[in-house]
Amino acid sequence: MNLNYSHHLEFRVRYSETDRMGYCYHGNYASYFELGRVEALRSLGIVYKRLEDDGILLPVVSMNIQYKLPAKYDDLLRLETTLVRTTNCTMEFTYVLRDQHALVLTNASTVLVFQSLHQGKPIRIPEFIQTILSMYEINQ
Amino acid sequence: MNLNYSHHLEFRVRYSETDRMGYCYHGNYASYFELGRVEALRSLGIVYKRLEDDGILLPVVSMNIQYKLPAKYDDLLRLETTLVRTTNCTMEFTYVLRDQHALVLTNASTVLVFQSLHQGKPIRIPEFIQTILSMYEINQ
Amino acid sequence: MNLNYSHHLEFRVRYSETDRMGYCYHGNYASYFELGRVEALRSLGIVYKRLEDDGILLPVVSMNIQYKLPAKYDDLLRLETTLVRTTNCTMEFTYVLRDQHALVLTNASTVLVFQSLHQGKPIRIPEFIQTILSMYEINQ
Amino acid sequence: MNLNYSHHLEFRVRYSETDRMGYCYHGNYASYFELGRVEALRSLGIVYKRLEDDGILLPVVSMNIQYKLPAKYDDLLRLETTLVRTTNCTMEFTYVLRDQHALVLTNASTVLVFQSLHQGKPIRIPEFIQTILSMYEINQ
Repeated sequence: MNLNYSHHLEFRVRYSETDRMGYCYHGNYASYFELGRVEALRSLGIVYKRLEDDGILLPVVSMNIQYKLPAKYDDLLRLETTLVRTTNCTMEFTYVLRDQHALVLTNASTVLVFQSLHQGKPIRIPEFIQTILSMYEINQ
Repeated sequence: MNLNYSHHLEFRVRYSETDRMGYCYHGNYASYFELGRVEALRSLGIVYKRLEDDGILLPVVSMNIQYKLPAKYDDLLRLETTLVRTTNCTMEFTYVLRDQHALVLTNASTVLVFQSLHQGKPIRIPEFIQTILSMYEINQ
Repeated sequence: MNLNYSHHLEFRVRYSETDRMGYCYHGNYASYFELGRVEALRSLGIVYKRLEDDGILLPVVSMNIQYKLPAKYDDLLRLETTLVRTTNCTMEFTYVLRDQHALVLTNASTVLVFQSLHQGKPIRIPEFIQTILSMYEINQ
Repeated sequence: MNLNYSHHLEFRVRYSETDRMGYCYHGNYASYFELGRVEALRSLGIVYKRLEDDGILLPVVSMNIQYKLPAKYDDLLRLETTLVRTTNCTMEFTYVLRDQHALVLTNASTVLVFQSLHQGKPIRIPEFIQTILSMYEINQ
């Protein structure tokens, strides 16, 4: 299923996230994308914490990041998170991270798989999530 | 019970641990002390992971850090971890972190409490740990 | 100078900040207190980033944390940061971290020292900061 | 230039690196790959810290990670870092992360660019590094 559901989030680069170059450490972007994803899902009525409490995990199976320009300490960043695709068991998100002047700093994508906590195996996307997501389906 | 069991550990400051000042971010020392503690316990035959797997948690209830000199990127640090005291349910560790020239960078202490995972309440220190620790008891 | 300037901040525990116990890792509170401090100063018109850009560092020289109850993933936390004291070269902050039900999770305090980037030595609190802070002085 | 220089590093998953799933948080692998890279370069006589002190930065411009199996707390991991390619200004590394049973947990690659600290622009790989690396050149 191809989708086009986007969500925007603003946050500042924390001091703890900077590195010796004075930039946001490149490893910290993964947690930014997670923030974007979690808030995008929350805005759809899907609370990730409740999924986990119900025994459904959603680990990342691949991540792809293009670093174009550095984010710097205290920068007010704007993250656009887009849910672009689902398969039986996976979701794919893309991310565009911009600074306060709307310059693109980073492009990224992640694929996540629905997994059973107890069996540790991929599972089909839960019905209620499919129902919600189908409202944002696009033909391609 | 007063104790005097010390353990030494060497490690480098990782790039991901630096901040914009070029120092090791002050929040990262907590993970260094945890490393010291876990390896000190391992050297006594107490594997923290197994405790958790057996339903015993050991959360930190207080932490006290005096930062004297900064640790810098790639510095080879030497951490001395000392188990100084136990009560019915708690363990107290002190830490001295030195740089490659033996200069003291940081002094710290933490108190941890033995807790039952399922009941979330403090529990007595397990017998086998008391037996091990009693070999290092000192009179004071 | 004794002061009483408080600031409130709300934020959620990020997934990246959790640990195997399902709690917010105890080492991450240092970055929460830094957030509180930076935003408290910003609300007074003091932008920490600009201080650093002007060659003034403000490293933490001591930190004291009492962990009472764990913060958990996705909890909406409320942090009260209070500037309680200054000396010639230092500022002392206290922190109370509460969960969404106003339960106190953590109490903490930090002392920071004004330092010259180039000389690496303590310096007096800049005049413009003293002027701002003097408006919040209390007699004790 | 195609290369084939590999380096092996062993380390444990720290408690601070775990997440609520009980796994190593997926964002932390970036710091593991950095460790591998820094130690691979050190084993060639190239100390990354000295490069930075000489005004040469080496930021990551792209990162690609395939997560196959989770790394868990206290697992003793083995990271194989291979320098596979250089261009005028860039270096490409690949990574294979294995657990103590030699199971592949993660595959990854990163591209880094040599950059001047002062001008913020890509620069040619320094001569002394080219000389060292040419010893590991392979024909393809």
